[in-house]
Amino acid sequence: MIEPASIAVIFTSTLSSADDPEYASTALRMEELAREQDGFISVLSIRDPVTLQGVTVSYWRDEQAVLHWKQVLEHLAAQERGRSGWYTEYSVVVARVTRSYSGGQS
Amino acid sequence: MIEPASIAVIFTSTLSSADDPEYASTALRMEELAREQDGFISVLSIRDPVTLQGVTVSYWRDEQAVLHWKQVLEHLAAQERGRSGWYTEYSVVVARVTRSYSGGQS
Repeated sequence: MIEPASIAVIFTSTLSSADDPEYASTALRMEELAREQDGFISVLSIRDPVTLQGVTVSYWRDEQAVLHWKQVLEHLAAQERGRSGWYTEYSVVVARVTRSYSGGQS
Repeated sequence: MIEPASIAVIFTSTLSSADDPEYASTALRMEELAREQDGFISVLSIRDPVTLQGVTVSYWRDEQAVLHWKQVLEHLAAQERGRSGWYTEYSVVVARVTRSYSGGQS
């Protein structure tokens, strides 16, 4: 469950190359770094190994936490690498959570 | 670009079985049906073939369109099949878009 008023950041991207070890290590590092930030709630990242299209959804306590994360130096450097080579295209959508629910087999 | 005030529906799920042809055809049909609904904007669905975890993000003009889609009969039946067998767990987060941007190599 994600609390109402939390912020969702939906990051969609397509990789230009399937096996770039530097990309892979940076992606892992960014997830690790995000988890350390104040206001971080959770992150889920899934990529299709065939189309190389991926979605990362992260949740944050508030807008301030999102804006701060966007400006973390090591993250800024990674964003630049993404724009200039790793991704053929990407998009970011920021949205404010209104409700959530979940279920599963027990 | 997704217009501010659009509604994002972030559906996360884990499949209980990797190769269920009935699931696959229903998933395709649901995407086709969603695209026909009034207020539909776009949908992107990605699943990891190893972990079987997937994310579907759909965007809608407003809350009314989301609520209507949730109640479409054929969709209700698919939701029930999902809850009772296809998914080991799932979650839905609904959020109101505040901003979006995109980029790519040209």
